[in-house]
Amino acid sequence: MRNLTLLTDFYELTMMQAYHHHQAATGHKQVAVFDMFYRENPCGNGYAVAAGLAQVIDYVNQLSFDKQDIEYLRSTGTFGEAFLDYLANFKFSGNICAVPEGTVVFPGEPLLQVVAPLMEAQLIETAILNIINHQSLIATKSARVCWAAKGDPVLEFGLRRAQGPDAGVYGARAAMIGGCAATSNVLAGQMFGVPVRGTHAHSWIMSFDTELEAFEYYADLYPQACILLVDTYNTLTSGVPNAIKVFKRMQEKGITLKNYGIRLDSGDLAYLSKQARKMLDEAGFPDAFISASNDLDEYLISELKNQGAKISLWGVGTHLITSKEYPAFGGVYKLAAISTDGGAWQYKIKLSEDPVKVTNPGVKKIFRLYDAKSGKMKADLIALADEELDNTKDLTIFDPIAIWKRMTLAAGEFTVRELMQPVFTNGKCVYPQLTVSQICEYAAKERDSLWEEHKRLVRPHMMPVDLSQKLYDLKQNMISSLRGS
Amino acid sequence: MRNLTLLTDFYELTMMQAYHHHQAATGHKQVAVFDMFYRENPCGNGYAVAAGLAQVIDYVNQLSFDKQDIEYLRSTGTFGEAFLDYLANFKFSGNICAVPEGTVVFPGEPLLQVVAPLMEAQLIETAILNIINHQSLIATKSARVCWAAKGDPVLEFGLRRAQGPDAGVYGARAAMIGGCAATSNVLAGQMFGVPVRGTHAHSWIMSFDTELEAFEYYADLYPQACILLVDTYNTLTSGVPNAIKVFKRMQEKGITLKNYGIRLDSGDLAYLSKQARKMLDEAGFPDAFISASNDLDEYLISELKNQGAKISLWGVGTHLITSKEYPAFGGVYKLAAISTDGGAWQYKIKLSEDPVKVTNPGVKKIFRLYDAKSGKMKADLIALADEELDNTKDLTIFDPIAIWKRMTLAAGEFTVRELMQPVFTNGKCVYPQLTVSQICEYAAKERDSLWEEHKRLVRPHMMPVDLSQKLYDLKQNMISSLRGS
Repeated sequence: MRNLTLLTDFYELTMMQAYHHHQAATGHKQVAVFDMFYRENPCGNGYAVAAGLAQVIDYVNQLSFDKQDIEYLRSTGTFGEAFLDYLANFKFSGNICAVPEGTVVFPGEPLLQVVAPLMEAQLIETAILNIINHQSLIATKSARVCWAAKGDPVLEFGLRRAQGPDAGVYGARAAMIGGCAATSNVLAGQMFGVPVRGTHAHSWIMSFDTELEAFEYYADLYPQACILLVDTYNTLTSGVPNAIKVFKRMQEKGITLKNYGIRLDSGDLAYLSKQARKMLDEAGFPDAFISASNDLDEYLISELKNQGAKISLWGVGTHLITSKEYPAFGGVYKLAAISTDGGAWQYKIKLSEDPVKVTNPGVKKIFRLYDAKSGKMKADLIALADEELDNTKDLTIFDPIAIWKRMTLAAGEFTVRELMQPVFTNGKCVYPQLTVSQICEYAAKERDSLWEEHKRLVRPHMMPVDLSQKLYDLKQNMISSLRGS
Repeated sequence: MRNLTLLTDFYELTMMQAYHHHQAATGHKQVAVFDMFYRENPCGNGYAVAAGLAQVIDYVNQLSFDKQDIEYLRSTGTFGEAFLDYLANFKFSGNICAVPEGTVVFPGEPLLQVVAPLMEAQLIETAILNIINHQSLIATKSARVCWAAKGDPVLEFGLRRAQGPDAGVYGARAAMIGGCAATSNVLAGQMFGVPVRGTHAHSWIMSFDTELEAFEYYADLYPQACILLVDTYNTLTSGVPNAIKVFKRMQEKGITLKNYGIRLDSGDLAYLSKQARKMLDEAGFPDAFISASNDLDEYLISELKNQGAKISLWGVGTHLITSKEYPAFGGVYKLAAISTDGGAWQYKIKLSEDPVKVTNPGVKKIFRLYDAKSGKMKADLIALADEELDNTKDLTIFDPIAIWKRMTLAAGEFTVRELMQPVFTNGKCVYPQLTVSQICEYAAKERDSLWEEHKRLVRPHMMPVDLSQKLYDLKQNMISSLRGS
């Protein structure tokens, strides 16, 4: 495992040294609460998919400054020996809780919460944001693409266009969590045990004198995964007819054809797929599947489906692996409370002219409310950590900005689930190690708990994310006192 | 150094096995030429900045399949023992040449060329594209942002929004090559010896009872790098007045103020910077600098400059580290020739309905032509590897698509430089190890060799990239014979 301890912004370290100095000078120990949350769903989606927690756990577990790190920091001329000594013995000692990977989440609610000595909480800000921002972005994009494909398998094909090796590898991981069926990325396959797929490129065809020869050679070698790329010369006059010849020859040899078909990688995919389907059906290959790639995204897949394209397998590259339309998740990490020497929480709030940018103070939890009958999600309610919800009584919740938007959930007609789970307690990881396939299973259930209206690609219905009365009152009081009213 | 051997698309391995099988069956050894090039400059720029070669070199040097890799590949059920034995002993044995990092490049010309046994050339496609696509993208974006800042230092601040750890680290490296003065990324600072910068966040201010207290504490600790973040409560009524109090106190203590100032991170940066400048000047701090951050990109920097904003240091995050407006470089890797058993090159071309998508066949080189007097770039000319240019004779070049667009360079009035350098010869790296600071120096000269018209952010003048007569004729003949005309 790579040690990413220095994967942080320089100001985290200058602040840490200042806190370290302050603590030595005053004798006071400060513990802080930081929330990681985001303000806007990527791509105008109705929700996001949280991802990256396993890599945050790895990162926190391996946090330690080795000799080279200390030497490097000394060489910057910014840090004194007392602080460097502290760093040399640094270990994370705090608490972290978070929503599980694959959870459907909404703007404004904490995906992760750190309660730790101020210095420690500050150090880990940058890497936590980097990791969760990236994977949640790609998982969300993947969920959109897979939704557009309406149950057809989507393959993640973007490694060559990813923003560096990690973006390819962890992007593939996140794409699986978002719903992809497989990836072309071999390293991701090895690291996460996820299925890998791929056949051949145009260069394979071009390295032979004829397309037919290239197809035949390939089919002989891979009779059980024979997807032939048909657009090197001309899809309908050369590629598909040659593919049919090869499939016929395979049949004549007594090979049972399954998991075979063609791939389209250029031209008009609606027209070509319909023509190719007809040709394959007429030749007696109705079960040959037609896969497509070439700059696909959720909008184009949706449009192709609307036009009756006969495509049943989608390879999606650049748009998915970079979330091209919306390439940054925008998660932030904000101070919510400080306690000095174990005393009561001193709540913290960051004001802004924009009401949705005002932060939520305090140590919080998230209640997710479901319709008891359908099992579908009704709303999220952010509350203070010591609050409980009783679903045997009516519950009225309200929008924290447009407070006249109220909803009452009748006693017994809703169920409640708390979203955040303990991940680190006193610096020790208490969270289970999950396989990516376990996470994918959970993530699929999460998406199923949404109504279809929330999943629409464009202008989806928005899920209410409300504050408990207690948190709302605390926030309003703090705003009033800070604004001097 | 991480072993990234499995950082490849699965189809590279299925094709490799097929080539391996073909070679064993026929006894023929095939050597291939692949070009890595791109088709469109990011963000509508007039050029791109090549970057990532050092990481490609690291990748190729460490290419080897270890026992776990072989075991993993065996577990996929796709590969036979003969091929796995070959992989277990795999070493790259081919040649690679490339344009140096920091070189200004244009669509259609090879940034990198591989001449290697077909199997080997195929394996390395994905990682080469991943690495060079990513770093060239960010270096190009950085060059745009730095051009907009008109000589003011630009700091790369995007780690938290980068697409994973590598995107942060190698993105910071590329940002430096594109012209940034420093990064906030500590790991990038350690790995590449580039300057790191950073002061404090809102959480620092909020952890104190008052803003003034927070400023004072910070100034005492870092008198030599005292940039105070002034927008936590109210920039003009609280932040700037408090900063001025602190600067005055520092003066009273006899501290010589230098490298000090304020940072604006919200609100209208044009208005606030002008007001803050006035306040600082009137208080006797005309050399205090004003830095700004908050979702900046090249367009906003340019507009702020147009409006007379008094900002002299720019922190750029999300837009730079993700190239938000254009987050994928789109480089491709195309087969250009094959030689069997050491015989003559069999040229390869990929046709397309779109003339700019038709590839250039053969083993090539790039001549860069400069105006002898000004030293500024005139055009690039892609030629076959055995061609030479004589600048003591007139040279007429022409656009390969609009062939009536011709330009004659008079004898003696132009100079010629060949762009591509040998990087690997027979699998051995022959390229010098350069520091990032050496690359940055070269890259700055490269950008200086462009006319300003080519650097405009919007609709820049396009540099001609022409083909030699010999390459043009070869290409046309191949097109004609493939189209059967």
